Amino acid sequence: MKEIGIGIIGFGTVGAGVVEILQRNSELLAARTGLRLVLRGIADLDLERDRGVMVDPALLTTDAAGLLARDDVQVVVELIGGTGAARSLTRDAMQAGKSVVTANKALLAEHGAELYEVAAAQEVDWLFEASVGGGIPIIRALREGLVANRIERIFGILNGTCNYILTRMEREPAPFDRILQEAQEAGYAEAEPSLDIDGWDTAHKACVLATQAFGRLVGMGDIRVEGIRGLDPLDIGYAADLGYRIKLLAVIQCGSAGLDVRVQPALIPHDHLLAEVSGVYNAVLVDGDAVGRTLYYGRGAGREPTASAVVADVVDAARNWAAGEAGRVPAFVGLDEAIPLQDPDTVRTRYYLRLSLQDAPGMFARVADILGRHQISIASVVQQEHQSGDYVPVIMLTHEAPAGAFQDAVNEIDALQETGAPTVRYRVEDNA
Amino acid sequence: MKEIGIGIIGFGTVGAGVVEILQRNSELLAARTGLRLVLRGIADLDLERDRGVMVDPALLTTDAAGLLARDDVQVVVELIGGTGAARSLTRDAMQAGKSVVTANKALLAEHGAELYEVAAAQEVDWLFEASVGGGIPIIRALREGLVANRIERIFGILNGTCNYILTRMEREPAPFDRILQEAQEAGYAEAEPSLDIDGWDTAHKACVLATQAFGRLVGMGDIRVEGIRGLDPLDIGYAADLGYRIKLLAVIQCGSAGLDVRVQPALIPHDHLLAEVSGVYNAVLVDGDAVGRTLYYGRGAGREPTASAVVADVVDAARNWAAGEAGRVPAFVGLDEAIPLQDPDTVRTRYYLRLSLQDAPGMFARVADILGRHQISIASVVQQEHQSGDYVPVIMLTHEAPAGAFQDAVNEIDALQETGAPTVRYRVEDNA
Repeated sequence: MKEIGIGIIGFGTVGAGVVEILQRNSELLAARTGLRLVLRGIADLDLERDRGVMVDPALLTTDAAGLLARDDVQVVVELIGGTGAARSLTRDAMQAGKSVVTANKALLAEHGAELYEVAAAQEVDWLFEASVGGGIPIIRALREGLVANRIERIFGILNGTCNYILTRMEREPAPFDRILQEAQEAGYAEAEPSLDIDGWDTAHKACVLATQAFGRLVGMGDIRVEGIRGLDPLDIGYAADLGYRIKLLAVIQCGSAGLDVRVQPALIPHDHLLAEVSGVYNAVLVDGDAVGRTLYYGRGAGREPTASAVVADVVDAARNWAAGEAGRVPAFVGLDEAIPLQDPDTVRTRYYLRLSLQDAPGMFARVADILGRHQISIASVVQQEHQSGDYVPVIMLTHEAPAGAFQDAVNEIDALQETGAPTVRYRVEDNA
Repeated sequence: MKEIGIGIIGFGTVGAGVVEILQRNSELLAARTGLRLVLRGIADLDLERDRGVMVDPALLTTDAAGLLARDDVQVVVELIGGTGAARSLTRDAMQAGKSVVTANKALLAEHGAELYEVAAAQEVDWLFEASVGGGIPIIRALREGLVANRIERIFGILNGTCNYILTRMEREPAPFDRILQEAQEAGYAEAEPSLDIDGWDTAHKACVLATQAFGRLVGMGDIRVEGIRGLDPLDIGYAADLGYRIKLLAVIQCGSAGLDVRVQPALIPHDHLLAEVSGVYNAVLVDGDAVGRTLYYGRGAGREPTASAVVADVVDAARNWAAGEAGRVPAFVGLDEAIPLQDPDTVRTRYYLRLSLQDAPGMFARVADILGRHQISIASVVQQEHQSGDYVPVIMLTHEAPAGAFQDAVNEIDALQETGAPTVRYRVEDNA
């Protein structure tokens, strides 16, 4: 049986999961592929820490450059993360003619352009199934399963930490900070949570999906990003009363006005499939011109789910290598160079608003007048019995309006002397 | 750009969809693959009917054998269905060294063993993404995306006609026959509906999935099949009261007792993802040892969704052909020859029962006694106010019990003089 040598760079959680799967399902993988995947080495700066997996100590090394240069390593698995050493090691490995498998969405989002070129020039695979949606085979679905389709839109719940926090907040109304702290204690959120809760991780993944689906490089500078930090349980409650759930969504859609890519918390009807995705699960909805609506669901992170995707890519790279066919499906295929990004101010959605208004005659009329002057029409209003204090919360859903006009109207409302606090607003994604 | 010649055999609904996509997305496919997919001919017995797609008449032929033998045809798309001519043409095409793409689940379920061997011997592709779940790339997910996993279970809603009927019956309680007739009039059910509503189509698809996932040939003789014909709206209503929906499920699971493959209507908790799959949509839930739970959702039938899957396979076959790599992922990989089929009588689930009992003292005790003697314990009972007639409907949910003991108990209950009608029972798939 032909052997394919694997070198792993980065022996963290996912790296340990990859080793675990390669060991546990070794015979299964050999039977399914007709190839023997042989782990040649694992490089990490820390060789002492216990990863909960048995490894021959002779496989461990601190010399990543040496490992990827070995003649008996054909597939390099880059799991160190970040955009520093990961970038140069990936480039070096591909320039040495090796195929590279990664879970590194930041690297793809920030240095994709450079590395896609290296992969193409070297005719090697650069595979990244694990970069989006953990174990969900969504990259394969886009690149191969839906290859016959012009993709129309992608809506994704792509960050398990945020979805866990939002699900917890739905079930037991509590302040964001307390839920975040509990999530950190339970290991569902990082000590430094910004990458997740401020939307950056979701944004990296949105860049990867948009780039694949629309054949156009989409980087972090091309998209608007808003996270869930400080979300008020009040809004989750009001949204629920109106029949909606709040999810952190990646929205990628292509219309006549161009490509609209953004990350933001948004209201989704409670009976929509994406609204049913709870806890640490991820889901990606993809609409194609031929297939119609499809959805892919699974664990978006974690040791073995992510490793499942990494090993699938290792198998793909190994099959290609064995057949002399590295780069069989190019890492990036550019289409229609001219596809423009939509001006974010022109993107139209409905909106949820929570206004804080002085409890005085005529206030509502003033707000309605401002909205009307910006051509924003009100779909429904909920004003509950006044409890206490000088300001009354007023909840509104609008009809569709462009983001720019909406922002102007909100700025005007917030500038009123009679407004008690900045208006809270979220998009409503009814058409998802 | 390298050309790959395509020959389509069978110019029905899906065939027309394939032609439509090859025309509409021709440039997109060329850019994504670097190959030019060229339609060399379409064979059908009826060359007159309007398929709603423009085709050069010179491409049409009644000579399927001649088309697949052409030197400039590398990929044959078999869309004639059935297990007669489809079987011999598929064999002939593969023996002529052509790769074959099909949507024919019946052929796979009934003659898979023979044709998998031909594909392997000839080193060609026999690809069948469109055979299960319409446009959902579920076969690719199992064969490639989840290749690192030992599959543990698959639960599928695989027949759009049945799911449409069940969804309609949930929303407007009406007799099965009337809903079926309306579905036929609306084009959602065939004039001869047996293949769908008696579960055979779902069973064919279950065979395909089980064979792929567990590396063991599973044929129609290996599975128990029950459809939804004659389902009583009463049971949909009672199930809803208890917090369940009734779905026609393909269940494929592997445990220490062996492989359990069956098709039957079953109760699923209403907040389960599969319960949310409504109308003509399909969904497949797959649990793997590394990835955990994943789910794939989309249109299970229809011209373009099915054609989307066919064209994805054509692309795969074309890429492999261009690289001299036909058969890159074998059509079937046998694993663990010894994996036994579980004795269906030993399969344990909970059950829903609707008993029809004489309204007389002691009746309930007699039924409870029979269940107890078969070691079946009752989880809950609903007996509503007696309306009219001599017999009272009593609804029960049991705890888990093996199918054999359960059947014995029901036989005993139904033999009681005081039973008004055969007991209606469905499995409850709480653990899905």
